[in-house]
Amino acid sequence: MVNGKRAVNRCDHLGVAPYSDTPGGLYRAYLTPAYIAAQRTVAQWMVEVGMTTRTDAAGNLIGRYPGTTDGPPLIIGSHLDSVRDAGRYDGPLGIMLGIECVASLHAAGERMSFPIEVYAFGDEEGSRFPLAMLTSRAVAGVLDVDETEPVDAMGIGLNAALARYGAEAGAPVADDLSGFAAARHPGAIAYLEAHIEQGPLLEAEGLALGTVTAIAAQKRFQISLAGRAGHAGTTSMALRRDALATAAAMILAVEEIARAAGGQNVATVGVLHAAPGAANVIPGSARFTLDVRAATDLECAKLAETIVTRFDVIAAERQIASTVELLHELPASPCHPALMEALDQAIAAEGVPVRRLMSGAGHDAMILSSLCPTAMLFIRCRGGVSHNPAESVTTDDAGLAGNVMLRFIKRLEDMQGA
Amino acid sequence: MVNGKRAVNRCDHLGVAPYSDTPGGLYRAYLTPAYIAAQRTVAQWMVEVGMTTRTDAAGNLIGRYPGTTDGPPLIIGSHLDSVRDAGRYDGPLGIMLGIECVASLHAAGERMSFPIEVYAFGDEEGSRFPLAMLTSRAVAGVLDVDETEPVDAMGIGLNAALARYGAEAGAPVADDLSGFAAARHPGAIAYLEAHIEQGPLLEAEGLALGTVTAIAAQKRFQISLAGRAGHAGTTSMALRRDALATAAAMILAVEEIARAAGGQNVATVGVLHAAPGAANVIPGSARFTLDVRAATDLECAKLAETIVTRFDVIAAERQIASTVELLHELPASPCHPALMEALDQAIAAEGVPVRRLMSGAGHDAMILSSLCPTAMLFIRCRGGVSHNPAESVTTDDAGLAGNVMLRFIKRLEDMQGA
Repeated sequence: MVNGKRAVNRCDHLGVAPYSDTPGGLYRAYLTPAYIAAQRTVAQWMVEVGMTTRTDAAGNLIGRYPGTTDGPPLIIGSHLDSVRDAGRYDGPLGIMLGIECVASLHAAGERMSFPIEVYAFGDEEGSRFPLAMLTSRAVAGVLDVDETEPVDAMGIGLNAALARYGAEAGAPVADDLSGFAAARHPGAIAYLEAHIEQGPLLEAEGLALGTVTAIAAQKRFQISLAGRAGHAGTTSMALRRDALATAAAMILAVEEIARAAGGQNVATVGVLHAAPGAANVIPGSARFTLDVRAATDLECAKLAETIVTRFDVIAAERQIASTVELLHELPASPCHPALMEALDQAIAAEGVPVRRLMSGAGHDAMILSSLCPTAMLFIRCRGGVSHNPAESVTTDDAGLAGNVMLRFIKRLEDMQGA
Repeated sequence: MVNGKRAVNRCDHLGVAPYSDTPGGLYRAYLTPAYIAAQRTVAQWMVEVGMTTRTDAAGNLIGRYPGTTDGPPLIIGSHLDSVRDAGRYDGPLGIMLGIECVASLHAAGERMSFPIEVYAFGDEEGSRFPLAMLTSRAVAGVLDVDETEPVDAMGIGLNAALARYGAEAGAPVADDLSGFAAARHPGAIAYLEAHIEQGPLLEAEGLALGTVTAIAAQKRFQISLAGRAGHAGTTSMALRRDALATAAAMILAVEEIARAAGGQNVATVGVLHAAPGAANVIPGSARFTLDVRAATDLECAKLAETIVTRFDVIAAERQIASTVELLHELPASPCHPALMEALDQAIAAEGVPVRRLMSGAGHDAMILSSLCPTAMLFIRCRGGVSHNPAESVTTDDAGLAGNVMLRFIKRLEDMQGA
């Protein structure tokens, strides 16, 4: 019913110049020429299926498919920007599937009671300015307008980038952050985002789709260890206070505890430095990061606490001074129970086993949850690979996702009537 | 009998300007003004106790205390150069104790049948030029004269440094490496080196002195691991191929295996890098160094093999591609059995329990073993600390070491007669 092949092909089409800012590899940064080119093409695709288009003050592209009434819309969204050396589906696929849903309705001459707005958000990745989800925060009205103006790697500030974009795209945009921080009025009845999983779970279980339960709660720590440096040749094993070996024991504990916690609990040591860093010197100090995520704030706190408690035991056993610093924490952003239920029903109706899973990564949906109830649909991607040119999704899976989204839209219509 | 206090005080005296090239902290580099100043002062101390002095083509200072015959000498040696931010005893103490032994003989009007030559070697640490033990290699005749001319951090080549030293010190030196590569003729009846332990073993056992059995055999490896990078939030624990967690398991295996091997076996991971090195990315690759040392070549090979075999198991279990590259290996340099026995007897005669231990660090003695039988005496240092301004040795321990050396000299005289 829904054209998954066209959705995937359009992502591929957008994966090269003029839709990329770099000649080799995809990089489509917020407000750049490649971004403007992609907006123009996507707007054309929107218009072809009966939508009107506009851009907002934050530089988001919005396609609107009217309803039989003019109340708050269903927003179907995802992002048009990409990381450097990106895959082609992280972001665009959710937009393309939104367009395909509208295409199906349009072809059948169907309208819902509510308008459908397909949002192509501008800055989810934060890969140009050091602030992520800038434009969905603008839409949700949760942008902190007191933030210092962000500046990109070329030294171009956000305000100058907005002005240049406005001139080149012929679009009215805000002069600065405070201008595009205005929340969307009216709100929305719901927000639906389809996105590749960016993880290997669905593929491992042989499932095309999954209903996202929540965007994970997250805590990030930095751990610093102080032992005693010593000569690798002259210090017997028994007398060592090796900071790196201690870090190694802690890393294995992280792995073991997160595995034992099971479910959607994950914990990762991504950065480790040991000093002084010479082959013939026992490391006297080490520091590493710990990233902990779980489906709920409580589970996240419990997992982190279990790990940090174990760290204390390991440090004490090895006579190593250990400090654990909380760098930041994000509360979980749960999807709406009734909308999850609606997605489950739509998935089941397509003959696919229902699988609920957490999103470990952040998405625009976590921001939109301030505006309205949210739902997220995950689509299997090959090997769980993302942020990588090898990102891959099948046209069958994309079509299935589109069908589920269309069923979800109709279920939402039923829920409106109820 | 032997003046340990004076030996220690003289090391302290040499620990500051003009005997250091840096104003704060000791750094006495080969052939520098501080090195020349130290040679002049040490030469004066040698002359005061009845020695004649000279420098050789490699810029070593040699004090000679004649014997009743003019055959090959006993060489007592250590190095006058230091690392950056050095302690005051690593090197100089062995020279000062040699001088004090001669002082005792001189005061008593005693001579051995053999001459005693006290060598102050110039470049043991390799902390100026990227080649260590340059001048003891010259004395032992094992310098590789085809080596590229080494250049220091200031861009000064060895030949220019030698010429400048020769002019400033008024000493005849070689024009280049091939000139100072000539082996000492005649050889020597033995080489005796006293040195701080640079490890915590003697202190931990409450012993002032130890007889060195060998300078350790050493193997150095680089291990490279390739797993799969992934999003820290979206990749479930079960599906990870984490290169850093794998490295952690290997580091703990190194520790466990070296501990189980016991004795003087040590193994160290001193350097570890994990990539890509972001808090929210599972490390896809890691590399680390492995330094393995043992008293004999066989034990070293066995320890390394056990560790590398375990690495293979860990890598296979975790589906991580692992490569192990041997960076270099040094055979063990055993001390001479009869000389160890003589040292043991001298230690016992001083009422100190005999303790034999391996030297995990390299010393000029390992080079001199090409020239003659060698013996090494280790002296307890506080906390095992070395290459650090906190290096510390007691005057009592130094005096005891001097007494042992003097007994060793007399025992050597007996052995010559035998």
